[in-house]
Amino acid sequence: MDKTAGFEVSGVRIGGKEPIIIAGPCTVESEEQTLTVARAVKAAGIKVLRGGAFKPRTSPYSFQGLGEEGLKILKTARDETGLLIQTEVMDARQIDLVCRYADILQIGTRNMMNYSLLKAVGEVRFPVMLKRGFMAKVEELLLAAEYIIKGGNERVFLCERGIRSFDDSTRFTLDLAAVPLIKKLSALPIVVDPSHATGRADLIIPMSLAALAAGADGVMVEVHPWPKKALCDGLQSLSLDMFGEFVKKVSAMIQFLASHNQEQ
Amino acid sequence: MDKTAGFEVSGVRIGGKEPIIIAGPCTVESEEQTLTVARAVKAAGIKVLRGGAFKPRTSPYSFQGLGEEGLKILKTARDETGLLIQTEVMDARQIDLVCRYADILQIGTRNMMNYSLLKAVGEVRFPVMLKRGFMAKVEELLLAAEYIIKGGNERVFLCERGIRSFDDSTRFTLDLAAVPLIKKLSALPIVVDPSHATGRADLIIPMSLAALAAGADGVMVEVHPWPKKALCDGLQSLSLDMFGEFVKKVSAMIQFLASHNQEQ
Amino acid sequence: MDKTAGFEVSGVRIGGKEPIIIAGPCTVESEEQTLTVARAVKAAGIKVLRGGAFKPRTSPYSFQGLGEEGLKILKTARDETGLLIQTEVMDARQIDLVCRYADILQIGTRNMMNYSLLKAVGEVRFPVMLKRGFMAKVEELLLAAEYIIKGGNERVFLCERGIRSFDDSTRFTLDLAAVPLIKKLSALPIVVDPSHATGRADLIIPMSLAALAAGADGVMVEVHPWPKKALCDGLQSLSLDMFGEFVKKVSAMIQFLASHNQEQ
Amino acid sequence: MDKTAGFEVSGVRIGGKEPIIIAGPCTVESEEQTLTVARAVKAAGIKVLRGGAFKPRTSPYSFQGLGEEGLKILKTARDETGLLIQTEVMDARQIDLVCRYADILQIGTRNMMNYSLLKAVGEVRFPVMLKRGFMAKVEELLLAAEYIIKGGNERVFLCERGIRSFDDSTRFTLDLAAVPLIKKLSALPIVVDPSHATGRADLIIPMSLAALAAGADGVMVEVHPWPKKALCDGLQSLSLDMFGEFVKKVSAMIQFLASHNQEQ
Repeated sequence: MDKTAGFEVSGVRIGGKEPIIIAGPCTVESEEQTLTVARAVKAAGIKVLRGGAFKPRTSPYSFQGLGEEGLKILKTARDETGLLIQTEVMDARQIDLVCRYADILQIGTRNMMNYSLLKAVGEVRFPVMLKRGFMAKVEELLLAAEYIIKGGNERVFLCERGIRSFDDSTRFTLDLAAVPLIKKLSALPIVVDPSHATGRADLIIPMSLAALAAGADGVMVEVHPWPKKALCDGLQSLSLDMFGEFVKKVSAMIQFLASHNQEQ
Repeated sequence: MDKTAGFEVSGVRIGGKEPIIIAGPCTVESEEQTLTVARAVKAAGIKVLRGGAFKPRTSPYSFQGLGEEGLKILKTARDETGLLIQTEVMDARQIDLVCRYADILQIGTRNMMNYSLLKAVGEVRFPVMLKRGFMAKVEELLLAAEYIIKGGNERVFLCERGIRSFDDSTRFTLDLAAVPLIKKLSALPIVVDPSHATGRADLIIPMSLAALAAGADGVMVEVHPWPKKALCDGLQSLSLDMFGEFVKKVSAMIQFLASHNQEQ
Repeated sequence: MDKTAGFEVSGVRIGGKEPIIIAGPCTVESEEQTLTVARAVKAAGIKVLRGGAFKPRTSPYSFQGLGEEGLKILKTARDETGLLIQTEVMDARQIDLVCRYADILQIGTRNMMNYSLLKAVGEVRFPVMLKRGFMAKVEELLLAAEYIIKGGNERVFLCERGIRSFDDSTRFTLDLAAVPLIKKLSALPIVVDPSHATGRADLIIPMSLAALAAGADGVMVEVHPWPKKALCDGLQSLSLDMFGEFVKKVSAMIQFLASHNQEQ
Repeated sequence: MDKTAGFEVSGVRIGGKEPIIIAGPCTVESEEQTLTVARAVKAAGIKVLRGGAFKPRTSPYSFQGLGEEGLKILKTARDETGLLIQTEVMDARQIDLVCRYADILQIGTRNMMNYSLLKAVGEVRFPVMLKRGFMAKVEELLLAAEYIIKGGNERVFLCERGIRSFDDSTRFTLDLAAVPLIKKLSALPIVVDPSHATGRADLIIPMSLAALAAGADGVMVEVHPWPKKALCDGLQSLSLDMFGEFVKKVSAMIQFLASHNQEQ
């Protein structure tokens, strides 16, 4: 892989030689919760903090996220730690607002085929992580990315986060074969989100290692200081202890893959 | 079923005693094409014309619809025939524009989980047909409808249009059991779209009859005067000849079901 | 459709002008249970009784059927009522035994790709109902039937019984579009089993009507005198009361379709 | 993991500390083809040769395998190389025959729910690899294994080989999260077959590495000396060159995982 592959976001290369880790709470719930996670993420040497302020929820009666208040909390975390902030945008009318607080825009799985949003995001000059729709074929994901790129915004990376299948043993079915397949079809970086895919904290470490071994450009995981009290997705969030183990094992795998690829 | 079930749109009852038929081209391509279909629809005694001006296409390089020009053509068809106009809205910023031309808003399958759009549509006082996402469970469809209703817009009806499965014998898998199931779970009317579900013109008549027999409040079908020249979805569009046969058979089934239910 | 289409089993035509009804308990549990259902089936003017003696169960610790004792109970029911007996064969080594008691062999959904069994069944001269595998494409079902026909056993009919999808609102997803599709691809008769497909007794009547409207050559339903006490599939079995309503509505639909097709 | 976990087959431990590799042609086509592969497998330090003599094919008109002649070729390969032989059994009536030639019985994906076969295999004292049905949930796979174990045959290991989903980008969807999940639910060893899962030779190496990183007890791959001339599954077979690269990369990963686990 070319050292200059991928693209830079404020000094952090996505899709370059070294895989990236993105970590943080599913949802920004409070300043205390977010800062606690942000400090652990920073201490682990990770560069990007994820956290949702606008949340697409299946039911209108579920917690919908803190909105702009959540964005402000993320900014506080950035000011303190220097971490890059990645957060979801659900609506073209939110883009300006979110761009004032975030470093990377995230398009969620339910909006991968929201072509109006993709076009709008293509008009800004802001890096975008596009999650695969849980109902999208690989080709449809690549064409969705084209909607953004066609607008002139070329800093797009993809995220495999599980697809729907008949098997409910895990929340979704993580389609890791999509990773090397996309590497053959496209130059876009691709990261993997085992948290949403499996819905189980105890499967995140093995599936993160598998994702990297399959050639992913990074992994994104959910971390929560108090998973049992999480407002959203607590079962699939790493506790701070598990996050420590995750960082250790993932770092060893990254190091192995780097040295192994160098030899060849 | 109660005579006063469902709701009225300019004198047409949706979800009432008599099933409704919605017909028209997938995409508004030209005035000639749209008016030719509209006249056939009107002549068949049907009340609602469908046609897309804004088209959510998988590829940004495919024809994206005529936009406002398409809406104007639909208005011409309404002025001539008196048909109600149903057309898709893809973006909250389009709602005002579309409401100036249409009688019924349509939310497409790819936007069923676009909660920003659902909320925005909940704020207008305009009837809405919400298509089931092709990867949405029945419960998720009902909760998506709640996003609209919660905003105060109660004139919502649903559309079963096929879900994704492993079997590619038909374009999607028409889930007709969702019809009687939704009748047990909700008071919302539900119609069936066999055109998108099967992707094959030659399956539309049997599946329309099946939908009505299963208890659907109506069927929606695509009609094109020259299917082989259609810019979109030609293979699944009824020609005018097939449309004639469709109307004859569907009318007989509707009459049978009405007389049979009366007897009981 | 040709009057002489399909084939005869002891005077009962399958795939002919008139759709067939097959009814009975999921599992033969006792003589009392089976005879109670058989008498109700006979009284309704139905010609074929279904009932399982060998049961393919997901767990080895579940009730596996009464085996030959169950076959004897079915024979008692035949001797009393004159109904044809349809029952499942799971193993090539059981074929001779089952043929001594049954009139129609049934291959279950889990064995549709058990090609050794299909070949073995192709070697006898006995009518066979082949259920679609719940993960089989339409083409695979037709090719599975070829395994039987290639052996020289041409009295095969198919059964659509629902496929697996991501949606667990119903037990399986009944793929009714497969019915008219198979009519276009093959001369084999096809019936529909809404009991296993939906897993809910309250959806059986609408889905039976839909199946017939879609052009099915028959429907197969589960009936149990005491559904709440059933050893298997109680939730999806019609009680005797519901069965009465089923017969009435299905008969009216069959009559409508016959008169309507005659007119044309 | 316990050094004494898993079980032994003629001195080869399955499910022990070190992952196992199983390699060979999809189908035994000729002595030359099979011996060519067997020698390459032996030279790579691998212990188990796979190859099909009885082939479950979707169409009765496809090549069905060489039958006993194929078994004899496998025996020749064993006599020359000392490799253990793993081959599929499709029918209870074949078990005695296959046991005369093989060291490990394989139950194929289409027979995972062929409970008669599972019971019959439970009655012999012969190791069995049970492939997950491409339509089976994880729980159903574990219960299928119970059918074998209940008979007293405890040397069972599982194989994840991809499940069916809506996405046809790869032949099946490899469900790697099933690997750590099964590790939590069961003591049975589990290997991964990326050849059938992806259907693409160029994805086998990354998915093998991913499988091992996820904790699999081994990988099974198809190798063919002349993939373009293969009678079955040529597109997904590794050529001898690719097999060399596979062995090198997989060995490095196994070594890394062993040293890394030791450290902890």
